[in-house]
Amino acid sequence: MKRKIRMGMVGGGQGAFIGAVHRMAATLDGHIELVCGAFSSTPEKSKESGKALYLPEDRAYGDFQEMIEREKALPEDTRMDFISIVTPNYMHFPPAKLALVNGFHVVSDKPATFTLEEAKELQTLVESTGLLYALTHNYTGYPMVKEAKHLVSSGKLGNIRKVVVEYPQGWLAQKLEAEGQKQASWRTDPKRAGISNCMGDVGTHAENLAEYITGLQITELCADLTAFGEGRELDTDGNVLLRFNNGARGVLHASQISVGEENAFKIYVYGEKGGIEWHQMSPNTLLVKWPDRPVEIYRTGGDHGYLSDHAMHNTRLPAGHPEGYIEAFANLYRNVALTLQARLSDEEVPPYADDFPMIEDAVRGMAFVKNVVESSKSDQKWYPFTI
Amino acid sequence: MKRKIRMGMVGGGQGAFIGAVHRMAATLDGHIELVCGAFSSTPEKSKESGKALYLPEDRAYGDFQEMIEREKALPEDTRMDFISIVTPNYMHFPPAKLALVNGFHVVSDKPATFTLEEAKELQTLVESTGLLYALTHNYTGYPMVKEAKHLVSSGKLGNIRKVVVEYPQGWLAQKLEAEGQKQASWRTDPKRAGISNCMGDVGTHAENLAEYITGLQITELCADLTAFGEGRELDTDGNVLLRFNNGARGVLHASQISVGEENAFKIYVYGEKGGIEWHQMSPNTLLVKWPDRPVEIYRTGGDHGYLSDHAMHNTRLPAGHPEGYIEAFANLYRNVALTLQARLSDEEVPPYADDFPMIEDAVRGMAFVKNVVESSKSDQKWYPFTI
Amino acid sequence: MKRKIRMGMVGGGQGAFIGAVHRMAATLDGHIELVCGAFSSTPEKSKESGKALYLPEDRAYGDFQEMIEREKALPEDTRMDFISIVTPNYMHFPPAKLALVNGFHVVSDKPATFTLEEAKELQTLVESTGLLYALTHNYTGYPMVKEAKHLVSSGKLGNIRKVVVEYPQGWLAQKLEAEGQKQASWRTDPKRAGISNCMGDVGTHAENLAEYITGLQITELCADLTAFGEGRELDTDGNVLLRFNNGARGVLHASQISVGEENAFKIYVYGEKGGIEWHQMSPNTLLVKWPDRPVEIYRTGGDHGYLSDHAMHNTRLPAGHPEGYIEAFANLYRNVALTLQARLSDEEVPPYADDFPMIEDAVRGMAFVKNVVESSKSDQKWYPFTI
Amino acid sequence: MKRKIRMGMVGGGQGAFIGAVHRMAATLDGHIELVCGAFSSTPEKSKESGKALYLPEDRAYGDFQEMIEREKALPEDTRMDFISIVTPNYMHFPPAKLALVNGFHVVSDKPATFTLEEAKELQTLVESTGLLYALTHNYTGYPMVKEAKHLVSSGKLGNIRKVVVEYPQGWLAQKLEAEGQKQASWRTDPKRAGISNCMGDVGTHAENLAEYITGLQITELCADLTAFGEGRELDTDGNVLLRFNNGARGVLHASQISVGEENAFKIYVYGEKGGIEWHQMSPNTLLVKWPDRPVEIYRTGGDHGYLSDHAMHNTRLPAGHPEGYIEAFANLYRNVALTLQARLSDEEVPPYADDFPMIEDAVRGMAFVKNVVESSKSDQKWYPFTI
Repeated sequence: MKRKIRMGMVGGGQGAFIGAVHRMAATLDGHIELVCGAFSSTPEKSKESGKALYLPEDRAYGDFQEMIEREKALPEDTRMDFISIVTPNYMHFPPAKLALVNGFHVVSDKPATFTLEEAKELQTLVESTGLLYALTHNYTGYPMVKEAKHLVSSGKLGNIRKVVVEYPQGWLAQKLEAEGQKQASWRTDPKRAGISNCMGDVGTHAENLAEYITGLQITELCADLTAFGEGRELDTDGNVLLRFNNGARGVLHASQISVGEENAFKIYVYGEKGGIEWHQMSPNTLLVKWPDRPVEIYRTGGDHGYLSDHAMHNTRLPAGHPEGYIEAFANLYRNVALTLQARLSDEEVPPYADDFPMIEDAVRGMAFVKNVVESSKSDQKWYPFTI
Repeated sequence: MKRKIRMGMVGGGQGAFIGAVHRMAATLDGHIELVCGAFSSTPEKSKESGKALYLPEDRAYGDFQEMIEREKALPEDTRMDFISIVTPNYMHFPPAKLALVNGFHVVSDKPATFTLEEAKELQTLVESTGLLYALTHNYTGYPMVKEAKHLVSSGKLGNIRKVVVEYPQGWLAQKLEAEGQKQASWRTDPKRAGISNCMGDVGTHAENLAEYITGLQITELCADLTAFGEGRELDTDGNVLLRFNNGARGVLHASQISVGEENAFKIYVYGEKGGIEWHQMSPNTLLVKWPDRPVEIYRTGGDHGYLSDHAMHNTRLPAGHPEGYIEAFANLYRNVALTLQARLSDEEVPPYADDFPMIEDAVRGMAFVKNVVESSKSDQKWYPFTI
Repeated sequence: MKRKIRMGMVGGGQGAFIGAVHRMAATLDGHIELVCGAFSSTPEKSKESGKALYLPEDRAYGDFQEMIEREKALPEDTRMDFISIVTPNYMHFPPAKLALVNGFHVVSDKPATFTLEEAKELQTLVESTGLLYALTHNYTGYPMVKEAKHLVSSGKLGNIRKVVVEYPQGWLAQKLEAEGQKQASWRTDPKRAGISNCMGDVGTHAENLAEYITGLQITELCADLTAFGEGRELDTDGNVLLRFNNGARGVLHASQISVGEENAFKIYVYGEKGGIEWHQMSPNTLLVKWPDRPVEIYRTGGDHGYLSDHAMHNTRLPAGHPEGYIEAFANLYRNVALTLQARLSDEEVPPYADDFPMIEDAVRGMAFVKNVVESSKSDQKWYPFTI
Repeated sequence: MKRKIRMGMVGGGQGAFIGAVHRMAATLDGHIELVCGAFSSTPEKSKESGKALYLPEDRAYGDFQEMIEREKALPEDTRMDFISIVTPNYMHFPPAKLALVNGFHVVSDKPATFTLEEAKELQTLVESTGLLYALTHNYTGYPMVKEAKHLVSSGKLGNIRKVVVEYPQGWLAQKLEAEGQKQASWRTDPKRAGISNCMGDVGTHAENLAEYITGLQITELCADLTAFGEGRELDTDGNVLLRFNNGARGVLHASQISVGEENAFKIYVYGEKGGIEWHQMSPNTLLVKWPDRPVEIYRTGGDHGYLSDHAMHNTRLPAGHPEGYIEAFANLYRNVALTLQARLSDEEVPPYADDFPMIEDAVRGMAFVKNVVESSKSDQKWYPFTI
């Protein structure tokens, strides 16, 4: 008999956008419940947040160490199953590590860690404990991304030749950090954001999506990162040439100074026989392109019968009912929940449920950021993608 | 101190699409929890559904009568606060009535009832009990619909002259009921769907949206309904001329035989000074039109600062993160929850929280269906909108 | 051996938009040359225009009577073959009649005449003289309109059930005639525009396109016309329910007060097996819709090989090179030229070249306007489409 | 008193797509007439083409040498004013040179020459003769491109930071040259196409548009060209990082193997204060983006009054009437004609009429191709843009 999976949250106190997204995504399908949290930097604020989330007082903890220790001491049918980490970047690694060491599964916001070395340490830990580790590269959760992946892997597009992936934003066109805007402040601060701002934040989503859909790996790259905005130390824009392990070529560009853009995340993949185009801001549509036939408009929803099982597994609504960002994010959590339930009941993981970004993606993401930053500083044209 | 609002569900057993939507919408924001249900036509199936929804066995009831009776007997801090009705059309009225009579609030899928008379009976009951009644005309929950309403009510568009509202679908272009498809079977059956199929199902959404956004009321109409599909008794297509109480003119058309259309629900409103255009399938965009300036693309999400408070109240995510059908639906449930919490704690209802379709909308919707059906059969050109 | 066809123009002096369009359209493909004209209301202005158009002085005439008389007296290898009429509405009939009586072919801007009776008189004259008469319902010249017609006539869409055609404009939302704007002044003036403004100007394009694409005829209609704009006598907005001769239903709406709209002329046609959607402002795209397959994006240009010969005959450029309004207009003139050249050399008219709006369309257009105006004033719900 | 400008054509015989485009573009506005040509590789074919174009037999010449010699001998009021060169790439330079030497102006299809050296030779000749030389980078003729240039040059977008320009096509995804397709055969053949295929054909349009709109110059680039398609020697795809003379960064990518793409030529320019986005396949729309206001949809046509004079000078039709590829192309020819007429009558060139691509653009285009080809072969990351 199945039971709900119990989640403890690290970060995500009142006012934090991404914490609320994780909670909505985790609970959307009813398989996960929030049972506890260490929501804020101070115990008082954490209590406050717990109350607003209707949690019992004794399960809003002062910090993640306390949460992990106290939850571990609770009876097995009460204590949390996994932690969800939604803190700023530099606070992803410590709770992830402590959770794994104490037997809790982990879902972490990206990037996995502050440095590539930490990511590799985490990988060793995940492998040795056998615990589940999921990284919320949420864009891979969209049903049309699943369909795109299916079209590639089924061979319908033929051998892939070219990939264009772009993630322009405009929110840092102005110097918001000078006005004290919180997000802008930590993202542009090397001490809190790490070696990269734009590439670490959105460039890495682009890299992940390109590799996820095509099943290919970047082997070489050539990057030009720029810190537009006077006095800024970290990149707010980046353009990268890509080469993949099958000989395909690519372009990846991302930006925070493309004024007027929201999250104009798009991907184009061209194979020898066909191509696809997907825009994150119109996520329920996938354009499928052929040499000698009209472009086809694939749409989410199952009524019409042409979508793959993989896409259908990640769809909740009939055609014509837009699913959005939260639903895509929820697909990741749902797959985590289905996988954990299968483990708990010693059953096989249902088809497609084990499809979410794991520790390997986490490591590649950290490596990507390191490699583009180093490439950008280098005179060497082609920089190898090393881990 | 606020607590979660407790929901009991009538209908929505395993496999029912709309029941699942209501559950996701109700619980998305964490203010409502599902505590019990009478999910199916048989007690066994209802138990099965309760189990799949992780409910305790004793709160999955055999039918709605049993649920209402037994829940009423539970302690006040345990029993459900309201019922959510997600059964087929002909089964909306009985549970709504019984719930109200027994002191439970009601959220009902549309249409409110099977006949206009029942709707008026319900109105009397709602008024006499003082209980809350919400009808899930969910499309009014979209943030850009709120913005459209705001643009009209603030006078920015000037006096409204013309409204075009359309809801074409194609799913009944083929005779699915002949193949036993469940939805198609009951929708095309007068005994279960009532006097209208297409107009009752989607036409009424169009009517509601037009009146909601403009704040106007239809006073006369001229309808042409057709039952395309051999042997069908109920309309699968309808075209209607509209006249509004301020002299504005309009066109409303809806269809289930517009082959290849999903839910292509669109509205255009033109005033003396400006106009708007909104498409349900691209819900995060609102086109705003002017005589002498470029068309403006309004977008959900608050970072850019130009949206009204009304729209912002119904938005969860920053610009660029698509919100969809479930989120719009959830706005309705969230407003119900906030209103009930205010009642429970004797506080004022927060701004915009009392904005959801109520019993008046329910009655107007039933009247609309009756009036278009009668108009279509009549030789009289202009048919008065009577209630 | 083929020669260029020679055109004389009535109207279209300097500054007149539509005259310039006709000249560009007529000469685009090199089969027609402008040889003479009576361009303006005064001989001086006409001379001026002739000079600006590089015509010899002796072929810029004072009025159309003079032009017809003097051209008739010229040698056969010099004189004009046909006249192109681009004057305001009330001046279409007189030159058309005089030209036909004197043996000249006619291309006329729409509407053909001021009254239905005149149109019928013209029809008699065209039939008795055997001369060619073309009416510039230019929108039927777009290649994707040809493709839409082909999809219907080839049976691919099945029996047609529903047609929605709309032509909203916003240019008369403000009272431009009060500011002396020329177009606005005559269009809103019954003495110069006739019994209708909006319906006569753009509504009739919508009627023509609907009948052209579907091959059906409107048999009954129900209209609601409104003269928005204080003090106006003629309609600036109209909404019409349609019934076609095969039982199909339709909606036609047109407007000049849909503020912010340019020429948002769109048509949707739904058959039992498939549907199409076309927007005049994105004319190189035709959406083709199916019950069980993705929507297909048909595109002008022939490289991809799936378009019909009919569409290809009306296309000049490979895929990806936008063709626009002038090219569509030019298709009409090109077909006229090819037909006249075939007559001159006693050859068969090439395939598809005889496809342009003729006198029958002219008469139906005038009848449409008369019928909607009368229907709008009538209490009778269904008004028969009489000629 | 103004007269028509007389054009002689080199190339563009029957069946050649681009020759027909030049003829339509040149004559669209009535200021230019085709008076002679050397249309084909054999005198017979050239005569045949001349006849189909309604030219007198004695002005269809056997080759361009004959045409230039014989036209030069004609009286001044009869002979051609300029030649239009529409031959394959390797045949652009010889007629251009001979025409200039003999006192004829030149309009040439791009690329100007086969090698950069030839382009520089041409530049010397143009400067020494004072004759007019225009290169048909036709995309700069679109009114919305003019508006984009105006928005940059007027400072409304602020200092430019980022440019993304892309020109994906799919027509060489399959090996059409193996099937003997003519275009594919010469484009993929180094002997006829030169050192580059994709970059020379469409990449150079992208380069020209980026520099035209921004007024900036590329100073360094980093290219990765690939000859997808077994056995091909020349690039069919290319990705390039760009650096501009003001510090702006850019990405340029072009392709002929992006299967399913037509001419998906797009440009995005982002400044410190605003940005623009333009798509060649929807050319009448320009998106204008701001940090704190809705995106604005600028549209061609002048009724609304917000477009610049520069854009209006290149517009023929009111808003809502799509102008396309031929009209944009015709803007270039019209400006050439207006400039030549001004020279002939010793008047000042009218405002904006001297805005067409000239010999400097021709030289930069040839240099761009040489630089990307060399950069692609080099290990040096940043390759200087040298001429």
